[in-house]
Amino acid sequence: MKPLLNADLQVVSVGVELFAEALERQGATVERVEWRPPGEGNAELAGLLAQTWREEVERANQEALGRLLAAQQILVDVRPAGEVIPGLTRDTLLHAGPPIAWERMSGPLRGAVIGALIYEGLARDAESAERMAARGEIRFDSCHHHQAVGPMAGVTSHSMPVYVVENRAFGNRAYSNLNEGLGKVLRYGAYSEDVLERLRWMQRVLGPALGEALRRIPEGIDVRALIAQAVQMGDECHNRNRAASALLIKALAPQVAALDALESAERSRVLAVARDNEHFFLNVGMAACKAALDAAHGVPFSSMVTTMARNGTDFGIRVSGLGDQWFTGPAQVPVGLYFSGASAEDANPDIGDSAITETAGLGGFAMAGAPAIVQFVGGTPQEALGYTRKMYEITLGESSAYTLPILNFRGTPTGIDVRLVMQTGILPQINTGIASRRAGVGQLGAGLVNPPRECFERALRALAATLVPPSERVSGGRG
Amino acid sequence: MKPLLNADLQVVSVGVELFAEALERQGATVERVEWRPPGEGNAELAGLLAQTWREEVERANQEALGRLLAAQQILVDVRPAGEVIPGLTRDTLLHAGPPIAWERMSGPLRGAVIGALIYEGLARDAESAERMAARGEIRFDSCHHHQAVGPMAGVTSHSMPVYVVENRAFGNRAYSNLNEGLGKVLRYGAYSEDVLERLRWMQRVLGPALGEALRRIPEGIDVRALIAQAVQMGDECHNRNRAASALLIKALAPQVAALDALESAERSRVLAVARDNEHFFLNVGMAACKAALDAAHGVPFSSMVTTMARNGTDFGIRVSGLGDQWFTGPAQVPVGLYFSGASAEDANPDIGDSAITETAGLGGFAMAGAPAIVQFVGGTPQEALGYTRKMYEITLGESSAYTLPILNFRGTPTGIDVRLVMQTGILPQINTGIASRRAGVGQLGAGLVNPPRECFERALRALAATLVPPSERVSGGRG
Repeated sequence: MKPLLNADLQVVSVGVELFAEALERQGATVERVEWRPPGEGNAELAGLLAQTWREEVERANQEALGRLLAAQQILVDVRPAGEVIPGLTRDTLLHAGPPIAWERMSGPLRGAVIGALIYEGLARDAESAERMAARGEIRFDSCHHHQAVGPMAGVTSHSMPVYVVENRAFGNRAYSNLNEGLGKVLRYGAYSEDVLERLRWMQRVLGPALGEALRRIPEGIDVRALIAQAVQMGDECHNRNRAASALLIKALAPQVAALDALESAERSRVLAVARDNEHFFLNVGMAACKAALDAAHGVPFSSMVTTMARNGTDFGIRVSGLGDQWFTGPAQVPVGLYFSGASAEDANPDIGDSAITETAGLGGFAMAGAPAIVQFVGGTPQEALGYTRKMYEITLGESSAYTLPILNFRGTPTGIDVRLVMQTGILPQINTGIASRRAGVGQLGAGLVNPPRECFERALRALAATLVPPSERVSGGRG
Repeated sequence: MKPLLNADLQVVSVGVELFAEALERQGATVERVEWRPPGEGNAELAGLLAQTWREEVERANQEALGRLLAAQQILVDVRPAGEVIPGLTRDTLLHAGPPIAWERMSGPLRGAVIGALIYEGLARDAESAERMAARGEIRFDSCHHHQAVGPMAGVTSHSMPVYVVENRAFGNRAYSNLNEGLGKVLRYGAYSEDVLERLRWMQRVLGPALGEALRRIPEGIDVRALIAQAVQMGDECHNRNRAASALLIKALAPQVAALDALESAERSRVLAVARDNEHFFLNVGMAACKAALDAAHGVPFSSMVTTMARNGTDFGIRVSGLGDQWFTGPAQVPVGLYFSGASAEDANPDIGDSAITETAGLGGFAMAGAPAIVQFVGGTPQEALGYTRKMYEITLGESSAYTLPILNFRGTPTGIDVRLVMQTGILPQINTGIASRRAGVGQLGAGLVNPPRECFERALRALAATLVPPSERVSGGRG
């Protein structure tokens, strides 16, 4: 077909990406021009940024990205957290996001801490739990320091069952707690008796049943392949896990149905609880992302982001070449759709380890394949396409496993580069649930959120410091 | 945003629909101009067609479409066909498509007939089965005459278990046999011992287990709601049933796991067979479409198509206002992708009742929501979008249940109008499996196919005859 338009047309403003694509479909050659002043017009930052475009960073990023893309994540077991998670003693509580002390914890995280202490039998009631926490009798630590991740509050304690995901390409493992479903749940800071009763059933029945079922599947469940399918089935595997959850149930059901040690009513309940939870898969997917990203962490000089996580107060990132250092900024309140009766006034700032999905090329980065999600987070299917397209500008590569039919099977944008974020001013796009800021209330809605810019600025400064001796640094306006 | 283009641009050729939409997204008003001579330039047909644009046809079509859209299909049971399908005696074999005698049956249909006669114990071997069929000892009839549908050969006999789908809005029921999976299967004309052994297990274990599981779900399974979900998960529910199958397993698994009457190994096998069959849902979906369309059949003067079906030799349609009459033409060979080693030379003409999905607004009509299907049927995701867009031109309305996120949640094109097909020259787009033309070989691939034009021409003539006394008819070239 002959192009109907003059191919000289130049696209010079943000938001005409769809138009550019339409022209390309007509045969026109489109030069995309998107330019912002690097470092957002700050000369010092621009100078630091300029110093990071170096051969050793490029090489390190290729190594880090290569490891991320080469992951082979297999779900192999469910075990009590205390048995498998390194360093998870009886008096330790893991939580989502960067490390945080009790005093600075937001409502939902405090609620989850209270619930976990009662559940573990360490505290009798909320008051004694708060006292213990305030007195420093509990060791708090970030899930991420223990090969673990947890959605929302992410509180994980010794007796809770956790998924065990193995990255066969590198031999490392990652862990995540089990999803409790919607409504009043610990991860949103609820700790009423029904919440605790569900957790006890998960410990007594659900965890052991899933563990036994998994151990009966000798090859395990290939989570990478499952996510690849789900991404072609309208999931982005953060805020929409409908397909992935059904596929996981499909994979587990034959083994669960064969568990003679369980009474028929309990076998049925295990599968019914899974059936009724559209985020049944979320925690498995998060552990798979963690297993992939941990293997990509620790490549000297790499500017690839290997963690994005929120504790409800701070948003923190970690970078492959910058060791265990967190680069933090204040967590933002997501913008989205609220359940009836709820509003942004009641919302807690962004919370949870689930942004590990975006860090691995899913979630907001894969929204183009999940247009139906706009019914939950707001916006239009065209905007969902736009979010994914934009993320290609701040990522080092494209997923070899997760491909988007609607973009002609292009891989999802994967491997956030701190430098590209600072260069373009484009922040990672995150889909997420919205928690009430009061402990014990639960989910208020779902929406979109970005990390604070300062996380990336701080990481860039640290990266520049590893590359360039102070004497050689370009001195900027505030230098 | 200001439109970047001059809105005066006129779109005058086929294939620029995508371009027109892109312009509309830029804010331009686009007048779509697609014009073909009605009746394909045949003056007599054009005259007949002109006579059918009448108030009574419009009213009848609104009634027929309204019934189709109002369907409430619930999967309630699995029972032996002979117990539930009206008129299915022990010496009757139902088959897909319009009625056909043994002499004119194609290879895969003959193979399935042979297999069913051995399976039922009516014949000892292939030779005796063929003799019985040739001597007229077997009553053959179309599934469609018995509230039933079956994919490919569609052969359904007295002992086979069938799904029972109830249309709660109208009280009618429809039936479909159970899906055997891929490879060598009866529906593609295979009848080796392993094929028959699988059918016996389905009769002995699978059918009763699914039936008992369904009877334990008091409200049944809402198939309309399930399809609506699957259409937002990349299925078009004809050639791609991955999501729908997983959702169906998810709904059934808790009950199957509780079946104490079955040994644990058999409970496990029931769910494993379902797990390994990505078309597990297909037959349920077909019965649901049949239940909806049967309720819309029989509205006097309606030109809405209520059946499209193929027996491997003839393609036949039925029309709501034209009673039980079939309008047939030669079945075409699908164009698509072949499994390695197979080619179009080995392919049988189009076969099966599965085009009931397109008749109800799914399959090829819903391809825009199933871009990943092009990996199986060929083409590009953009072409998949294009097929759906084209079908809006020959349909009376849009589904209220099945919506496509990528088209901003527009309902799938639903309710084929014989007049619009003849007016536009656009034939319904069907996705389908491709069978070998030799009995016993199986599936060769998957692709796209259209009904022959003559089905619609014949239906138009019959419709005109019901509307206009002969004396008033416009006499055309061949008049």
